[in-house]
Amino acid sequence: MARVMNFNPGPAALPLAALQRAQADLLDYEGSGMSIIEHSHRGKVYAAVHNEAIELIRELLRVSDDYHVMFLQGGASQQFAMVPMNLLGDGQSADYVITGSWSKKALSEGKAVGTVRVAASSEKDGKFPRIVADSELDLDPKAAYVHITTNNTIAGTQWHRIPDTKGVPLIADMSSDIMSRPLDVSRFGLIYAGAQKNLGPSGVTVVIARKDLVEAGRKDIPKIFQYRTQAGDNSLYNTPPTFGICLLRNVLSVLKDRGGLEKVEVENKKKAEMIYGAIDARPDTYRCPVDKASRSLMNVVFNLTTPELEAEFIAEAQKKGMYGLKGHRSVGGIRASIYNAAERSWIEQLVDFMNQFKKGA
Amino acid sequence: MARVMNFNPGPAALPLAALQRAQADLLDYEGSGMSIIEHSHRGKVYAAVHNEAIELIRELLRVSDDYHVMFLQGGASQQFAMVPMNLLGDGQSADYVITGSWSKKALSEGKAVGTVRVAASSEKDGKFPRIVADSELDLDPKAAYVHITTNNTIAGTQWHRIPDTKGVPLIADMSSDIMSRPLDVSRFGLIYAGAQKNLGPSGVTVVIARKDLVEAGRKDIPKIFQYRTQAGDNSLYNTPPTFGICLLRNVLSVLKDRGGLEKVEVENKKKAEMIYGAIDARPDTYRCPVDKASRSLMNVVFNLTTPELEAEFIAEAQKKGMYGLKGHRSVGGIRASIYNAAERSWIEQLVDFMNQFKKGA
Repeated sequence: MARVMNFNPGPAALPLAALQRAQADLLDYEGSGMSIIEHSHRGKVYAAVHNEAIELIRELLRVSDDYHVMFLQGGASQQFAMVPMNLLGDGQSADYVITGSWSKKALSEGKAVGTVRVAASSEKDGKFPRIVADSELDLDPKAAYVHITTNNTIAGTQWHRIPDTKGVPLIADMSSDIMSRPLDVSRFGLIYAGAQKNLGPSGVTVVIARKDLVEAGRKDIPKIFQYRTQAGDNSLYNTPPTFGICLLRNVLSVLKDRGGLEKVEVENKKKAEMIYGAIDARPDTYRCPVDKASRSLMNVVFNLTTPELEAEFIAEAQKKGMYGLKGHRSVGGIRASIYNAAERSWIEQLVDFMNQFKKGA
Repeated sequence: MARVMNFNPGPAALPLAALQRAQADLLDYEGSGMSIIEHSHRGKVYAAVHNEAIELIRELLRVSDDYHVMFLQGGASQQFAMVPMNLLGDGQSADYVITGSWSKKALSEGKAVGTVRVAASSEKDGKFPRIVADSELDLDPKAAYVHITTNNTIAGTQWHRIPDTKGVPLIADMSSDIMSRPLDVSRFGLIYAGAQKNLGPSGVTVVIARKDLVEAGRKDIPKIFQYRTQAGDNSLYNTPPTFGICLLRNVLSVLKDRGGLEKVEVENKKKAEMIYGAIDARPDTYRCPVDKASRSLMNVVFNLTTPELEAEFIAEAQKKGMYGLKGHRSVGGIRASIYNAAERSWIEQLVDFMNQFKKGA
């Protein structure tokens, strides 16, 4: 069939041009006589891809030389453990800001490693309808770090500011909104992101880490889990996920061609406003459970008045070629995930459908 | 250019049919309207791929229900740490058999976790020209496990028997020879393998683990590193490397179509014998540094009389379309890696070239 409108939360739609480039090259990468998958990770052909991918991250996010850019494996879930393993020293404590189930998982893995503290939480009746305010942050000035999740895919909330942690390193899981907007990386100690929303396929994790934190990290853990190992070897200590990094390079090239993250952000804001506008225009039909100021530009969640109507909405949308609109199993409802690769025309069709659905019923 | 003869040690050549299938599907997987890369890892389409890949491993290796089959990330290097983190209890010790630099790395990560012991080593003057004999194995009957590396890609050696560990669980790194021959899985406690030689692309690690060992594993480590986490969730605790697993499925389908591992082994033996025959036929020109009984069927290493001749050999071979023949940087010489996907016709051309090279000089 024709390619559908893919609103999946991740793995998610990727830019068609990035996939087409990977497809064209799959048997014979740029005339080298073999697939990029079959190239040695220590050869010149792959090295060019690897280094271009790193340079694109540095360029798009304006990452200074004070930071390492690494490609790791295991997803954000592995970073939930690696961050405290590296950065939480004996006798230290780390602060976690809880804004969703992923933050809670990060906290839980931190507990398995050392002493952790909840600095704030927006949990209310098992849900997370908002991002916490600065005034709610109960920060420990001696904490090893403060951990936040910048976008909450299940709750549909997003941080629209960078909290002031008074000099304590700020660690951010940006799996679902990295590269969706410009970023002041210098405000963070370490940023990590699973690739499968805005960057590429699952199986690649991007870590951007301040060099002094990497240097000061613990040495009494296995070498493979020390950030300094991959940082010191340009992420080639062992075999990286070469195809995934190649596809990530393709995706970032598309973002650069679009004019960079300022342009990407304008488009993302426009797309999100269109859907939130359609929700707010019909309060008797649609309801967004998220505080307005905390609404995510990446995952727009909303409810209809009954689960039956939601099921009908999802089924009807799918008939029109719109896939992946079902909310997370833990919360139900509707979720439109509109990462960078979700095209404006898809949003227009979704909004048209929302405007028509049960109109006059 | 046309696809070359790829003798890379890994990432390595993959069966052309497996790559072609991935290419055909890359934009629209089996008429689903999206790439397999863009499918949810919790949806039906990907689930079918995931479960077929697991079933193919079970079928080809005749894995019994006493074992879990898992897809992890991080390569064999991560298993060097995860094995002791899970299986090495407080007050216990683990035995390592050292037959190459990868075994040494596994040992080194074991040391970072707990108490480890060298049960035997074939190291001689910094090289590893052979696999150790049973009589050399100094096994601790109380060890938590015994660790071996079944094929040594750098040294060019391979275990052609399964050692008797007298009831102590045998753990094997099979990254470079899994699926190259039939295997009695029941002799092992746990097998792990990075995919990038015989299974698929880098970024997927297959772990086959006895259920009782997984069950008895430590619980005082982060959840993401406990085997029970992925085993209990069919490797879907977090997002798996979906494209890599899809390509692995394609590769294993090709092996099944070839008639299974008995057929694969016959072909692999034939291919290796052809090259070793060419080496042994010209002892004044070629020399294999490996004991005959320990020769690898996967990585055939040999030397010419001078490094200059070796460089000439590699350059001339490349002109004829044979790539990846340079030995590992730590040992030099020539290495022909001939995993399952290396075609018989490539070996014939390599042997023809070896027979002609400096003939009569």
